[in-house]
Amino acid sequence: MKPRSRSSQGRLLYAQSGGVTAVINATAAGVIEAARAQGVKVYAARNGILGALREDLIDTSKETASAIAALRHTPGGAFGSCRYKLKSLESHRAEYERLIDVLRAHDIRWFLYNGGNDSADTALKISQLGKAMGYDIRCIGVPKTVDNDLAVTDCCPGFGSVAKYTAVSTLEASLDVASMADTSTKVFILEVMGRHAGWIAAAAGLAGEGADAPPHIILFPERTFDEDAFLAKVKATVERVGWCTVVASEGIRNAAGQFLAEAGTRDAFGHAQLGGVAPVLAALVKEKLGYKYHWALPDYLQRSARHLASKTDAEQAYAVGRAAVDYAMAGQNAVMPVIERLADAPYRWKIRSAPLDKIANREKKLPSSYVTRDGFGITAAARRYLSPLIQGEAPLPYGKDGLPKYVQLKNIAVERKLAPFKT
Amino acid sequence: MKPRSRSSQGRLLYAQSGGVTAVINATAAGVIEAARAQGVKVYAARNGILGALREDLIDTSKETASAIAALRHTPGGAFGSCRYKLKSLESHRAEYERLIDVLRAHDIRWFLYNGGNDSADTALKISQLGKAMGYDIRCIGVPKTVDNDLAVTDCCPGFGSVAKYTAVSTLEASLDVASMADTSTKVFILEVMGRHAGWIAAAAGLAGEGADAPPHIILFPERTFDEDAFLAKVKATVERVGWCTVVASEGIRNAAGQFLAEAGTRDAFGHAQLGGVAPVLAALVKEKLGYKYHWALPDYLQRSARHLASKTDAEQAYAVGRAAVDYAMAGQNAVMPVIERLADAPYRWKIRSAPLDKIANREKKLPSSYVTRDGFGITAAARRYLSPLIQGEAPLPYGKDGLPKYVQLKNIAVERKLAPFKT
Repeated sequence: MKPRSRSSQGRLLYAQSGGVTAVINATAAGVIEAARAQGVKVYAARNGILGALREDLIDTSKETASAIAALRHTPGGAFGSCRYKLKSLESHRAEYERLIDVLRAHDIRWFLYNGGNDSADTALKISQLGKAMGYDIRCIGVPKTVDNDLAVTDCCPGFGSVAKYTAVSTLEASLDVASMADTSTKVFILEVMGRHAGWIAAAAGLAGEGADAPPHIILFPERTFDEDAFLAKVKATVERVGWCTVVASEGIRNAAGQFLAEAGTRDAFGHAQLGGVAPVLAALVKEKLGYKYHWALPDYLQRSARHLASKTDAEQAYAVGRAAVDYAMAGQNAVMPVIERLADAPYRWKIRSAPLDKIANREKKLPSSYVTRDGFGITAAARRYLSPLIQGEAPLPYGKDGLPKYVQLKNIAVERKLAPFKT
Repeated sequence: MKPRSRSSQGRLLYAQSGGVTAVINATAAGVIEAARAQGVKVYAARNGILGALREDLIDTSKETASAIAALRHTPGGAFGSCRYKLKSLESHRAEYERLIDVLRAHDIRWFLYNGGNDSADTALKISQLGKAMGYDIRCIGVPKTVDNDLAVTDCCPGFGSVAKYTAVSTLEASLDVASMADTSTKVFILEVMGRHAGWIAAAAGLAGEGADAPPHIILFPERTFDEDAFLAKVKATVERVGWCTVVASEGIRNAAGQFLAEAGTRDAFGHAQLGGVAPVLAALVKEKLGYKYHWALPDYLQRSARHLASKTDAEQAYAVGRAAVDYAMAGQNAVMPVIERLADAPYRWKIRSAPLDKIANREKKLPSSYVTRDGFGITAAARRYLSPLIQGEAPLPYGKDGLPKYVQLKNIAVERKLAPFKT
């Protein structure tokens, strides 16, 4: 039976927000496939919320089913994302009103905003303003962040894949270091993402278990960096094991609260832009202990490595996209599909609806019960939580050229109906 | 028919040398499996040539067939490697004589040295000294280097996998940058290995083709870094495409011949130890053009990423190991199994024997015909050469825990027969 067309009831707008992930496009695929099955046309905002403000919309109905299916294994943001936070409703009411104008002009009745806690806040405000302005819009937040720091949900789509990348890379690089330590590098430092929450750093701990297995030291942003304790543990590890692998979160701070690697610049959300704590630590090791070091900073490689995605993560990313459409069609508003854990081992999960106001602008840090007493490792509780999230592989199609077959959408623009708006 | 045992004819010693790769253990598997099939016992030197000098030998016959087979998909060096170059025969004759003593004490009649051009030189010297000292030893060099800079052979085992890692990572990170460029990072810089030869940097060029496809700029160590031309191309690319991906070899130098990222320290071979050209370039872009940047430096991750190995590379690494045993058993001496290309497309290759004195201490740089006229890209000839080397995937077994199933050998020591020797 062909699904009843709901196009007469309006269109659905989907937008990606903030840093992209290896699986955010799997969420897009979930949204578009679920909406198509319901006969609802999906527009996507080009470059996130900016596309909505600029009335720069993409008609996803121009894409083939196979192109949309290929989004499930294509990293990056297929429609573009942005770092642009809407200001408060009071000070920037014009921006919110413009959004409602664009939604109204294109008969958009459902707005799905795929991002982190800032985006959940924006979606919440739009849902409230729609009501105030007499425009019936359903806003659904869709979770996404490699930082895994959203409240309420058990985990965040995007995190499991960066966690797997980090654990596997830690293991592989440690095998390399172990081979060479007798005459070469003794200390290897891997810097990972995570401004305020040490979830990615913690995932590196899955690479090995036991005092002699890598990583020997994890530095979490939730713990103040203690130079003496760090150097003592590096020294003890090199003397006992022969080498030492350190995984450091970009966001670690000293006792004065300063980032060890403060770059001095800030992004559009006002967050400090970091990078480069690994060379700071390496220089410290060299100066104080005299060990030969190497360091790595995979940066965007870690969050775009779809070739090493977690199956669990890819499936959850797709599922939240589908669920968001279901909630929207069912008339829900100001909610987010979140992941609820039913069991650790074997891992079972389901998707449920949670109110955005419990999620917006909150930040879930690593629980202290997940960090060992010395502050340099993860506990059994952390392993129970993290391990299922990197389980399973999500194989890619590769071309004869040896490269993954990533899709490039046509991204055909919807005709504009309004005057330009200056953001 | 069971193969005739050759154990009465002596043993075979295998050693790994220099920086390890994602597939050097596949070569070890080829060596051990081919020797076992001939009834020859294989010892491995622990930590490369140092193990031979220290009489620290590993009896590989204590390992199961399945453990040896698992080496085909395990990165790092299973027996340990080292950065230790034997000095000249004239000045350090005692070291060479010690090697012959160890070989003699353990009835080692074949020595397979798995490394780059320094190791080919060592193998050549040992073969000559054996003759001079009246000890019948056959020395075979076995090629390995991510740098792809060995003479004679068409390519080097280890390179195809780092090439694939680099091309895929360039593609993936570029999809990320493209998504965000409107409001975030405009210039992304990936620093790759390659002290003097730009093979790895060139491989990044496989990520895309055409002026607008990433990488937009490749910086080769064979070309003098021209700051003005670089900045002009970054600017033009950002203005035309919206963003720009740069891949920089660690070994690029300025007009004065200085490394842009000279760390000031040197390894045991006297090579300058590099790292950190990416932040130098990023600071330049920020200062002169004002663009927001990100940079990545995967370091050991790139050469240990067995999870993304090239099938071509993994097969060649295994094949050179088997061929080395065949040559040794056939009585060849001072040779290396090299890869000969028979056709580009479809790619065909074979292994043949080449004399070590044509390989030792030489360095194959990127031909100038592989670099575009502006010095920032690769030519069609380079693509024809590079493309087959990243073709095919070499899937791994993963555990239920989501991690690759890498093998850890027992590495049981052979009993010593000689007095200690101070290296």
